[in-house]
Amino acid sequence: MDILIAMPLPEKSLIQGIRRAVRASGKSVRVGIGDDCAVLRPPRGHEILVTTDFTLEGIHFRREWHSPEVVGRRCLTRGLSDIAAMGGEPLAVFLSVALPGKLPQKWVDGFMRGLLALARECSAPLAGGDTAQSPQGILADIVVLGTVPKGTAVLRSGARPGDRVYVTGELGGGSAALKDFFAGRKPHAQDFPRHFHPVPRLAVGEFLRSREIATGMIDLSDGLSTDLGHICKESGVGAEIVADDIPRARVGRERERVDLTLALHGGEDYELLFTAPARKRVPASIAGVSVTAIGCITRAKRVVLRGSTGAIQALKPQGWEHFRG
Amino acid sequence: MDILIAMPLPEKSLIQGIRRAVRASGKSVRVGIGDDCAVLRPPRGHEILVTTDFTLEGIHFRREWHSPEVVGRRCLTRGLSDIAAMGGEPLAVFLSVALPGKLPQKWVDGFMRGLLALARECSAPLAGGDTAQSPQGILADIVVLGTVPKGTAVLRSGARPGDRVYVTGELGGGSAALKDFFAGRKPHAQDFPRHFHPVPRLAVGEFLRSREIATGMIDLSDGLSTDLGHICKESGVGAEIVADDIPRARVGRERERVDLTLALHGGEDYELLFTAPARKRVPASIAGVSVTAIGCITRAKRVVLRGSTGAIQALKPQGWEHFRG
Repeated sequence: MDILIAMPLPEKSLIQGIRRAVRASGKSVRVGIGDDCAVLRPPRGHEILVTTDFTLEGIHFRREWHSPEVVGRRCLTRGLSDIAAMGGEPLAVFLSVALPGKLPQKWVDGFMRGLLALARECSAPLAGGDTAQSPQGILADIVVLGTVPKGTAVLRSGARPGDRVYVTGELGGGSAALKDFFAGRKPHAQDFPRHFHPVPRLAVGEFLRSREIATGMIDLSDGLSTDLGHICKESGVGAEIVADDIPRARVGRERERVDLTLALHGGEDYELLFTAPARKRVPASIAGVSVTAIGCITRAKRVVLRGSTGAIQALKPQGWEHFRG
Repeated sequence: MDILIAMPLPEKSLIQGIRRAVRASGKSVRVGIGDDCAVLRPPRGHEILVTTDFTLEGIHFRREWHSPEVVGRRCLTRGLSDIAAMGGEPLAVFLSVALPGKLPQKWVDGFMRGLLALARECSAPLAGGDTAQSPQGILADIVVLGTVPKGTAVLRSGARPGDRVYVTGELGGGSAALKDFFAGRKPHAQDFPRHFHPVPRLAVGEFLRSREIATGMIDLSDGLSTDLGHICKESGVGAEIVADDIPRARVGRERERVDLTLALHGGEDYELLFTAPARKRVPASIAGVSVTAIGCITRAKRVVLRGSTGAIQALKPQGWEHFRG
């Protein structure tokens, strides 16, 4: 497949690693690596979900900040979290990866270890992909296919005025570690689990879909302000969020709560944000993950934040821009 | 989705371009771009085919050699040709693309134009993808999903001793242009159509599957010697190919036939190689594409070439290595 330059060593062993993983894959994968295409057998009466996400060195991770295991795990989390946000179940994972010629074999092994550990946890078989030599840096594109019973996928466009807005888990933990990195500190993995060991909320998403609780849903990858903006835009509605109700993550050795800014605009929490009619009973905890009401959907097409004093201000999507320079 | 640096201008307009294309997409795409996942509705009783292929600047193309339209077309051809090789029909296309900040808008527009023209020709709706800023060079990963009636996909592993070996079209045309580029010449697009304007053999693949003609099939992306090696390895067989029977492409202004070396080892022809039982009638032309018998499958687990004098020599997979430095 590489036409202008030869295959590097890590690539060959990567293919072998993928082959081994594929051989152990589930019954939904009829043909895995070793043919022109993988052949998947989805359950009857289901629709197919597809999501693709780049993980690029220097953009989404840095080798001096993240161990290869963490990069592999975070790479797959991006895709599985999108499946969770539709209320879906993973069907198969595909990994396209381009590696620089000089990359140590140890790095590749660690990356695959981290990725495959999460794949196993989530019953998401690796079913193929592509490998190439990279002109510079490590480049990975993760493709996750999922399934959902016909017509039941929870979309971003389903939020209605009067619905309550909920989030799973706690927010700001994913970005708190990055803030530390940028400030020249060295955050420890055990103090920032949501950054170094994210867990996609597949069981929660499936519960909310199958019980017909969620009207709209999105995963919090770009930050609450940005992702809530997506829900509102696609649903043609607005929202009012209560600052004091936002569950702020506890991070660091002292388990201090993150600033409101991080909880509002920090990304990569991979929690779920969903809306549900006010009359629906929403459990305080689903599949061991806390669920918190943080506001409601409004008719006015703007997103506002109600502060502790009761004062209201516009909540503009800020996402990651906030942390730059 | 970019966490460490901001989005460049071309990326934003690329998303808009994809959105427009997606809006025009077929009935199999229930939800396209604008949600966490695309939602696809495959036909009943079908299996899903999945293929992913990187197209990387400096590896698979060079901006000084290939126009953006050609890069876009070739990028999608890689994926569609894999669907053709299973006898499948395209269901949806996903494009993950990372662009350098300084890339001219014109380049992005041309790339999308080339890609979408082929997508339209092949009724393969663009249904989503991902965009990111690239630290260096243009990086694209094309994901194509296809469908095939349950259990009918033509695999690489189906070739049996006694089967005849066939190829579609003519070979060596895809790599002849590259050979010229490497030699410092400037091949003209109209003289090397298979390089600059490849056409995936979807109709041929479907015909061979639905008429139950092909026992094994692969697309010729890495060169005849390499790809025939894949068929033989996966099927546990060998093959004997007749040099004089290989249809060599006519290229250049004089429409001269390429050397046997190019036809044997040159890649990127995106023709199909398939095997069929000797008793099966195989048309000399399918969907307007010529079909040529070039040898047969043998019990001996080695691939050999019979020359004009009758002498036999081993045919080792050489693929693109041949053209390097």
